[in-house]
Amino acid sequence: MTALTPDELYAYDCQGYVRLDGFLDAPALASARSFLETAPDAHLPDTGLRRWEAPHRRHEAVRALVTGPAFTGAALSVINQPLRLLECYGHESSRGAFLYMHNGQTLDQLWEGGIRASRHLAYRCDYHDGRLYTTYVKLIAYLTDVGPDGGPFCYIEGSHKAQLPFPWPDAVRQRRTLLSQSGHPMLRTVPVRAGDVIVLNEALLHGASVRVSDGPRVLLAASYGPSFMTDWRRLEREPGDVETAGYADLDDEVSFHEEADGHG
Amino acid sequence: MTALTPDELYAYDCQGYVRLDGFLDAPALASARSFLETAPDAHLPDTGLRRWEAPHRRHEAVRALVTGPAFTGAALSVINQPLRLLECYGHESSRGAFLYMHNGQTLDQLWEGGIRASRHLAYRCDYHDGRLYTTYVKLIAYLTDVGPDGGPFCYIEGSHKAQLPFPWPDAVRQRRTLLSQSGHPMLRTVPVRAGDVIVLNEALLHGASVRVSDGPRVLLAASYGPSFMTDWRRLEREPGDVETAGYADLDDEVSFHEEADGHG
Amino acid sequence: MTALTPDELYAYDCQGYVRLDGFLDAPALASARSFLETAPDAHLPDTGLRRWEAPHRRHEAVRALVTGPAFTGAALSVINQPLRLLECYGHESSRGAFLYMHNGQTLDQLWEGGIRASRHLAYRCDYHDGRLYTTYVKLIAYLTDVGPDGGPFCYIEGSHKAQLPFPWPDAVRQRRTLLSQSGHPMLRTVPVRAGDVIVLNEALLHGASVRVSDGPRVLLAASYGPSFMTDWRRLEREPGDVETAGYADLDDEVSFHEEADGHG
Amino acid sequence: MTALTPDELYAYDCQGYVRLDGFLDAPALASARSFLETAPDAHLPDTGLRRWEAPHRRHEAVRALVTGPAFTGAALSVINQPLRLLECYGHESSRGAFLYMHNGQTLDQLWEGGIRASRHLAYRCDYHDGRLYTTYVKLIAYLTDVGPDGGPFCYIEGSHKAQLPFPWPDAVRQRRTLLSQSGHPMLRTVPVRAGDVIVLNEALLHGASVRVSDGPRVLLAASYGPSFMTDWRRLEREPGDVETAGYADLDDEVSFHEEADGHG
Repeated sequence: MTALTPDELYAYDCQGYVRLDGFLDAPALASARSFLETAPDAHLPDTGLRRWEAPHRRHEAVRALVTGPAFTGAALSVINQPLRLLECYGHESSRGAFLYMHNGQTLDQLWEGGIRASRHLAYRCDYHDGRLYTTYVKLIAYLTDVGPDGGPFCYIEGSHKAQLPFPWPDAVRQRRTLLSQSGHPMLRTVPVRAGDVIVLNEALLHGASVRVSDGPRVLLAASYGPSFMTDWRRLEREPGDVETAGYADLDDEVSFHEEADGHG
Repeated sequence: MTALTPDELYAYDCQGYVRLDGFLDAPALASARSFLETAPDAHLPDTGLRRWEAPHRRHEAVRALVTGPAFTGAALSVINQPLRLLECYGHESSRGAFLYMHNGQTLDQLWEGGIRASRHLAYRCDYHDGRLYTTYVKLIAYLTDVGPDGGPFCYIEGSHKAQLPFPWPDAVRQRRTLLSQSGHPMLRTVPVRAGDVIVLNEALLHGASVRVSDGPRVLLAASYGPSFMTDWRRLEREPGDVETAGYADLDDEVSFHEEADGHG
Repeated sequence: MTALTPDELYAYDCQGYVRLDGFLDAPALASARSFLETAPDAHLPDTGLRRWEAPHRRHEAVRALVTGPAFTGAALSVINQPLRLLECYGHESSRGAFLYMHNGQTLDQLWEGGIRASRHLAYRCDYHDGRLYTTYVKLIAYLTDVGPDGGPFCYIEGSHKAQLPFPWPDAVRQRRTLLSQSGHPMLRTVPVRAGDVIVLNEALLHGASVRVSDGPRVLLAASYGPSFMTDWRRLEREPGDVETAGYADLDDEVSFHEEADGHG
Repeated sequence: MTALTPDELYAYDCQGYVRLDGFLDAPALASARSFLETAPDAHLPDTGLRRWEAPHRRHEAVRALVTGPAFTGAALSVINQPLRLLECYGHESSRGAFLYMHNGQTLDQLWEGGIRASRHLAYRCDYHDGRLYTTYVKLIAYLTDVGPDGGPFCYIEGSHKAQLPFPWPDAVRQRRTLLSQSGHPMLRTVPVRAGDVIVLNEALLHGASVRVSDGPRVLLAASYGPSFMTDWRRLEREPGDVETAGYADLDDEVSFHEEADGHG
């Protein structure tokens, strides 16, 4: 297993993510891309994404990669607990695609049964005595170059440790613009090359900018957390049910858009 | 649903538990005791306990209690997330029974694959903007009186927020005594009456003193956490498996005893 | 210099104080008592206390003690910064004396110019990588035995790390009783012998119970903090003055009493 | 008094600073510049800076500014305690000038008497229940434009909340380059216009890039903290002195350079 270096851990702690340049060599890149051989499970017309669910269950090369020492070693460096794979998916997107920005440490959330919370306990990162303890870390492996025009990863600086609620701009709330296109002074973008991996603390307020260049953007993502966490799936249950497991929905950028559309 | 009062929340925050006096009225007590009608699932000879697993699956009255508004309302007060029931069990014990003290916020743990950690991410309590966020809260409903001689709940003061590792006394490490009988200056005990409930932040270093009085001590316990947590079960898996879910074992008082016995 | 042991540091962290038994030997006790040779600077009729200000400036034996390696070594163990002596005083009290309970980590304070705060930055304890960082630590050296009836040190369990505001009982707010006599379920008392020292994190909600035994209770106190803190003195200044240094007053038990008396 | 807006407070919390555009209007700019009428108190040849100490003591216009409602209101927004002015100085610099990068939340510091610490208690920012609590906040008022070539403010992203020690690059440690010129991937710079103010949490690892443009760069700085903090001054005292107040020196970029020079 390969652990992150002190420089990488410092970057992950301070920025909420770290980019590992050239993490995948050519054979690993080929393995990672093997999911493209089968048809996608979903096509999200809103955001122009094609999505493959759990490709590690169908493609042995993907499985070897996301359960292997390089991926799990990086994840373990920031979890520091017995861990498990929580989700795995592939993405392909083209011109016009984007990803709504989501999470942020202090979203004021309204959940089932009127529960109000400003923390989502699934997405956190503690620290004690030299070790980081993340609950949900995502490795995003880029399988194509993604330059500034290619719909790169974007985030709000420092939001993974925010104490105060993010003041969503009115234009975002009213769906007149995307946060990633709003010119927000704290927005940062992270261009990558094929083979780079972003190790992401899910507490960061992040998404993907609009892709304005041609050709496909392809990535493979794998998320890890402590062994007691359930697979990622949206929490859906009847009133009164207190046994079904799942992840409660965050009330973030997409909500404003769904609301403006009259659904959600 | 019934929320804890400000006094009860303050006690829970500062002490790591709060005793709710007379939480169960006579009918609720009768419901809770219904699990005794069937045979126990386990008998732990070391500690003199008889244990019923998941009685809410066999006894509708137990189910109604642990999924009902009183229990889940108390739990929700300190979780403040969509929650789920993580475990439920019944206990009956007699003279000589005890429970090893376990947890504490800063155990230096050695886990599978050489993982060293001083935090167990399953047992924590955060706070933000007026709300507590516990990951694992246990409601212990006492179905008989448990006086000072009855094997009462015991704990180390302030250990749920400890920053430093607990200095286990040598006599405990070498199994010459139990921590609860060691005269430790920070040990506190909590006698209860039938119908009282202890709401416990599992991060507290706690256990049960040796019962030196006659007759049975009976309790029903139900644990709750955020909806993304898996049912309580010991993590057992092969090397290389990163999909099985479960709770990694803590390296606590019982370990010293197992070690001294030459097993574990 | 003598550092606190791991057991003592753990107790200080978890309880907000630690009692060091027999910290002063007979010669040190005699040195500490030398301030009694001069007249007190104040007599507080409300609480039956006689108080000596800065006895280390008049009595070389006191100075040697409070600037010497035993006292500063204990303080340094929990400050872990270059430190300075912030205050020193002697107390003598007799039957009927007490000390209002004060501090607590989350008092909702109203200060000059309408400033509302739930933290007093002067009284805190951080932790990082194995070291405690206290801003205001008081060593209380007991120069007489103080049993349960002698007006012992008392505190609210866990209040030094409280996240929620202390719910002052109505009877305390309305001056019908003292908190230390209110039967509060989280109140703890700490009897001592002559020569014992209590090392106190000032963030703890603490005071002294009413003395109901005869004869004098005598103590010497010395407080320490990081070198950038000013000597303890009440902040008193004109509106608009932003240069005078001092400690803003806490809005605690004594305030309710002053209010009930129509002054303050 | 003028408080920071929610957007400004969010930026300050997440970035460790916030730039207030056009905070000084033309008359305020003229007031701020009045210190230039007298001779500087120091000229630092290493870094090409001319420095005026405490200009608010000599120039009424400066005093009115740094004790007035705009400056103290901004400071109070992030201190939330009765505050005081801790230091005030003016700077003028020309081509070649720079400021070594210093602070960062987790410097491993070696202080007087062998004290090792990874926190400097003078430079922190807590949070509780909707309010930030900074101990040392500096307002830097820019009195000339400072573009990317002008020696702008620079910092390491997220370093004000770092949990891990900053991994100083070897080339910095060995004085072969400045951190601000090292191409560090987490380095950010903040160009400003005359009249802009940067509100800085001193815990941030920050400095000024090398000025490569002509003409003077002029700024006025004023620092504030809770009322119990002493004026900024370097702690200098004899061994055994535990009464002198002051700020212990940080072991940062300048130390490596002093060491490489054989002094310090």
